[in-house]
Amino acid sequence: MRMYDIIVKKRSGLALSEKEIRWMIEGYTKGDIPDYQMSAFLMAVYFQGMTDEETAILTDAMAGSGERLDLSSLPGVKADKHSTGGVGDKTTMIVAPIAAACGCTVAKLSGRGLGHTGGTVDKLESIPGTRTALEKEEFLDVVRRTGIAVTGQSGNLAPADKKLYALRDVTATVDSIPLIAASIMSKKLAAGSDCIVLDVKTGSGAFMKTVEDSIQLAQKMVAIGVRNGKKMAALITDMDVPLGYQIGNALEVEEAVRTLKGEGPADLTEVCLALATQMLHLADKGDIDHCRSLARQAIESGAALQKLADMIEGQGGDPDYVYHPEKLGQAPFEGVFQAEESGYLAKMDAEGIGVAASLLGAGRETKESTIDPLAGIILHKKTGDAVKKGETIASLLTSEEAKLESAISRFGEAVTIAPAPPQKHPLIYARVTAQGVE
Amino acid sequence: MRMYDIIVKKRSGLALSEKEIRWMIEGYTKGDIPDYQMSAFLMAVYFQGMTDEETAILTDAMAGSGERLDLSSLPGVKADKHSTGGVGDKTTMIVAPIAAACGCTVAKLSGRGLGHTGGTVDKLESIPGTRTALEKEEFLDVVRRTGIAVTGQSGNLAPADKKLYALRDVTATVDSIPLIAASIMSKKLAAGSDCIVLDVKTGSGAFMKTVEDSIQLAQKMVAIGVRNGKKMAALITDMDVPLGYQIGNALEVEEAVRTLKGEGPADLTEVCLALATQMLHLADKGDIDHCRSLARQAIESGAALQKLADMIEGQGGDPDYVYHPEKLGQAPFEGVFQAEESGYLAKMDAEGIGVAASLLGAGRETKESTIDPLAGIILHKKTGDAVKKGETIASLLTSEEAKLESAISRFGEAVTIAPAPPQKHPLIYARVTAQGVE
Repeated sequence: MRMYDIIVKKRSGLALSEKEIRWMIEGYTKGDIPDYQMSAFLMAVYFQGMTDEETAILTDAMAGSGERLDLSSLPGVKADKHSTGGVGDKTTMIVAPIAAACGCTVAKLSGRGLGHTGGTVDKLESIPGTRTALEKEEFLDVVRRTGIAVTGQSGNLAPADKKLYALRDVTATVDSIPLIAASIMSKKLAAGSDCIVLDVKTGSGAFMKTVEDSIQLAQKMVAIGVRNGKKMAALITDMDVPLGYQIGNALEVEEAVRTLKGEGPADLTEVCLALATQMLHLADKGDIDHCRSLARQAIESGAALQKLADMIEGQGGDPDYVYHPEKLGQAPFEGVFQAEESGYLAKMDAEGIGVAASLLGAGRETKESTIDPLAGIILHKKTGDAVKKGETIASLLTSEEAKLESAISRFGEAVTIAPAPPQKHPLIYARVTAQGVE
Repeated sequence: MRMYDIIVKKRSGLALSEKEIRWMIEGYTKGDIPDYQMSAFLMAVYFQGMTDEETAILTDAMAGSGERLDLSSLPGVKADKHSTGGVGDKTTMIVAPIAAACGCTVAKLSGRGLGHTGGTVDKLESIPGTRTALEKEEFLDVVRRTGIAVTGQSGNLAPADKKLYALRDVTATVDSIPLIAASIMSKKLAAGSDCIVLDVKTGSGAFMKTVEDSIQLAQKMVAIGVRNGKKMAALITDMDVPLGYQIGNALEVEEAVRTLKGEGPADLTEVCLALATQMLHLADKGDIDHCRSLARQAIESGAALQKLADMIEGQGGDPDYVYHPEKLGQAPFEGVFQAEESGYLAKMDAEGIGVAASLLGAGRETKESTIDPLAGIILHKKTGDAVKKGETIASLLTSEEAKLESAISRFGEAVTIAPAPPQKHPLIYARVTAQGVE
């Protein structure tokens, strides 16, 4: 087999065979296939796409390029969720405890933030003592004891994906739906759960800017999972505006805890209930209505909050911070962004707000940057709200005063005030399963 | 400037600026831009193409990446020709002497054969003593004295093309008309002539298999030349069948000499007269009819043959071989391919015949292979001819008897006999100039 022939085949719009795909991924992971051939192949995929079958095989080959996490020693149905990333997206800290409280086994690998989007691992680390680099046995042990654990991704999980992503990142071949789907799903397959719910974000703060693209990506990922024996569902949720009112690591922990207490913002609560409902449904906990009431009860009874506290304790953190998140403290410097005119908040560009939070210290510019856990943004108004000139739209918090000015200015660029209220966006656009889009 | 942004721009179907193209070619030649980014870019060009302006700038940047041959010290109008390569294509050895005999200055750089097509340099080397690796001053000196010289390409001519071609060859990005046009024309621009006639071959033995593609390639190359201040014309000529009746290095010298004596095969004579006419016309020797009669006279008077002899002598060879090519000798082993049935020669796949000649020793399998100057094929029949069962269609000649069997078998695969004569192909399909296609 020759990589040259595989490039020609894909370039000509033909589907690759299973043998070809597996040979290519193995050869590339081992370093037998050079980057310059792989990047030409990736650009051919950008233009010609891949069938669902090709993408499913590619994903499985990538998942099999390193260690596969074996969750078979754990009891119960293993359920996972994945978000394509957004601003203010603290859903894992809410949805995973709800699912665990309802009897799912949640052994979840999560990532760090990069660019304008945050990562669950960074958020959890803002709770003193919490460790997110658990060894495999310790990780499984926490899940066994508490039903839930969230740890960072180990080095040898889907190494083909790591190598391919690094190449795509510098060759302008990231924006390909089959390649995005294979990248995400290869890690999910290697992570070993049986049921996977995907939260595909759509809008200004999401990787996918249009609902159509988001649905297409969701369909690809659902198809990949199903062909690899997983139970799959995806929700297309809004990320045109940040989710909830708080952006930043400790700030998001606080808002997540509040939501688990039943006192969270409506949008965040709704998205989390919807995601948890899908997880429970896939895990055979009953029909959709029943699963939704189970999820609600897990909040109302305090069982979900308890699960988060158990998990934090299991991972070495102090569970008292979960019950009293005010103990996390507040950043010493605060700036505000005030409305420059009266009217309605017509647009809050989520990506711009994510960048502003990052400028305050909540995110990383490079993989080596350190994070300011207390930095971030509290929104006082959101898209659609009426504002008066001079009214505070957001508080910006940081441990380094010098960072305030540029962050406030960047925040301001993300906000548009208009004389009339904007059209309302749905919060959840669609549900995608193997049966179709609804 | 970042290569990443240039890839994105081309991937999106936008035209690059002159600054971007020149920056990219300089960076790639110097090694600042890695192969994996360039191959992604090349694949994006494969799908999105390049405008005539982009291609012209790319070509000039590639031509300027190394030394440009300065022909300004030579008298007269410098005229060049280029063939896209074919089987039995000995036109340079005929056309260049005709043009020189009519007063053009022909300082031509030529290549070696690779794969199923031959190269003029190899053919000239079958004449004992002839040197084809002339130093620049010696090369110019031969042209100054005789009006004509043909030498191999020096190492530092268009190094960007050399590097890009090597990358395209392993990343399946050769088949792109703007990239093919830029590659050919970058060497032609660096070679310094004022007038360039292109012989774009079309058909089974050519790189371009269809007339439409050949015309498109010719148009691109003409446009590149014109935008870079050259006088340009291209002929689209048939390469569905080998040109002339002899394939192989010494065999082609003999047929070229015979054609310069006015005794060559009709197809070869016609293509050569047509190409020479275009060269003379571009060099302002008169209108097309007048140029054609000048070309004819150069053959009839013996002046063109004399030019070839002068050139060979200037390059260290023995001119007596030009007047008496039978002195070149004959290969010791001969096999024949005979008609297996009676009928008409319906098809002679030129590429297959080129491969058969190569198997006999006339061509190279790799760049390192040595050539058997006497090996080759003499056709006794060509497409359209009636044949009787058992009649000899071709003689196959080699210095190594062991090579005969597989070559005869490969030759046989290339030949089809049918009960009715095939449709006739034109010999010259079209002429392409800056004014259009006619």
